[in-house]
Amino acid sequence: MTRIDPLIYIIEPFGGSVRWHNPNLPHVFFDDAAVTRGDGVVETLLLSGGRPANLARHAQRFARSAEQFGLGPIDTEHWERAALQLAEEWEDRHEGVEARCTWTLSRGRASAGVPTAWMVATPISETVRGQRDNGVTVMTTGRGYRIVEDEHVPEWLPQGAKSLNYATTMAAVRHARARGFDDVIFVEDDRVLEGATSTVIVVSRSGALRTPPAGRGVLVSTSQAALFAAAHAQGRKVKEKKLLIDDLLSADSVWLLSSTRRGARVRAIDGHELPAGQHDTEIRALIEEALTAG
Amino acid sequence: MTRIDPLIYIIEPFGGSVRWHNPNLPHVFFDDAAVTRGDGVVETLLLSGGRPANLARHAQRFARSAEQFGLGPIDTEHWERAALQLAEEWEDRHEGVEARCTWTLSRGRASAGVPTAWMVATPISETVRGQRDNGVTVMTTGRGYRIVEDEHVPEWLPQGAKSLNYATTMAAVRHARARGFDDVIFVEDDRVLEGATSTVIVVSRSGALRTPPAGRGVLVSTSQAALFAAAHAQGRKVKEKKLLIDDLLSADSVWLLSSTRRGARVRAIDGHELPAGQHDTEIRALIEEALTAG
Repeated sequence: MTRIDPLIYIIEPFGGSVRWHNPNLPHVFFDDAAVTRGDGVVETLLLSGGRPANLARHAQRFARSAEQFGLGPIDTEHWERAALQLAEEWEDRHEGVEARCTWTLSRGRASAGVPTAWMVATPISETVRGQRDNGVTVMTTGRGYRIVEDEHVPEWLPQGAKSLNYATTMAAVRHARARGFDDVIFVEDDRVLEGATSTVIVVSRSGALRTPPAGRGVLVSTSQAALFAAAHAQGRKVKEKKLLIDDLLSADSVWLLSSTRRGARVRAIDGHELPAGQHDTEIRALIEEALTAG
Repeated sequence: MTRIDPLIYIIEPFGGSVRWHNPNLPHVFFDDAAVTRGDGVVETLLLSGGRPANLARHAQRFARSAEQFGLGPIDTEHWERAALQLAEEWEDRHEGVEARCTWTLSRGRASAGVPTAWMVATPISETVRGQRDNGVTVMTTGRGYRIVEDEHVPEWLPQGAKSLNYATTMAAVRHARARGFDDVIFVEDDRVLEGATSTVIVVSRSGALRTPPAGRGVLVSTSQAALFAAAHAQGRKVKEKKLLIDDLLSADSVWLLSSTRRGARVRAIDGHELPAGQHDTEIRALIEEALTAG
């Protein structure tokens, strides 16, 4: 396959036109808050068939993240239009090739005092496509800290916001990979939280869907929301519910859900194998349908 | 005062020459791990009188940070040489102007798979110079999480490492500033941890120095190490010791210590005023001496 160049739009964060940027040139300055302290917010979407998937939910979470970090309010329609334009241009250039689309809004350059913003499309990697098809092995791990009880959460703390601060999470993933696992599931004692960059979905023997409630160490998931909406429309039971590691081991199947990988079936947890479930085929189809829809 | 341009060196992370970079041009690519997930390590030093202050301790912590994030081993002598060269060039251009010098080592571009590295000098800001002279008011706040006990810390967790992930900390500082405070001190219940980008130093009525022990939510401090070494050489008592908020309120004086601001006397904590202490003059001189030495 020939190498496919990324497609980059520089965004006027609060409105105005987008500007194509040559991907072979840098565009971020040394004093941009994204670089100096990861001080910005991010969304990652799937571009499929010339359209951004699950667009409204991503735009809403992006707006909330920006608000929480004092970068808002943003004009979500402006970002949605840019994503639609990017998806169309991507499809024109690379028909039938799915892409990962990242939105970044940073506090901007210290010397300028205005936010910087951009949007990038890159092809979905081989690894991600392989994990969609073949599933993943995971290890569970604590995070090294515990979220405090709600009444002790400081009012300044950005909650349910997706920032650029992922260095520690990536250290966990590197550790897992070095030990032969594909991914991690974060736990607090035996309580299941979330994947490194994904949401844990459990399918019960009866075909019902469960996920740990968002908040307290679990990011609100756009993918889980889309999946549950589609499942509910099919008449399937869905519920946010506290889950223990044992609930995963005894489930019909466990999936890691995220925008660009969509669903990866968990094949083993800490070395305990999870054999194929009886609902796998329908769940896989349901995930694909829910996470490629606009 | 005329505007002083930053001075930027692009660094070959593992050896080789440095390269001057035009500060009016960007040099960071959209897919650099520093930008996409704050996945890199950082040090900030003072350049004073044509020399980097406290150089060896910064180089050692930088090396440890890199090691903890799987970016090492690095050649500390290479980084020290670059800093010496930068400090000299800065002094040639701007004699007598103190500078803040930042070292960044990022995991690099996703498409390249090699680290990127650079070093920047910028003038010490008016705000920082004002806080050195006039002190700061602070608010105390929890972090929203608790570090787990040592035996539950996962082995992959980078400890005592200074990464680019400062977005949440900066949210606390913005909150404090919006309420009329200059800075924050993080606490766990009534136990004192550290400042947002500084170390808490308490001077007792007898002139002894105390600081909370590093680890468990407190970063190892190069400034505190330099200060304690200089104080000890003077025959002053120094000790790492658990400190409560009440210990701060009853102290002779409290200081926030960091490389470029050096010492800022805490004038008030959560609205409780801390009047000038009897040791202030000597402590101020000691801090200045300890934190400008090579």
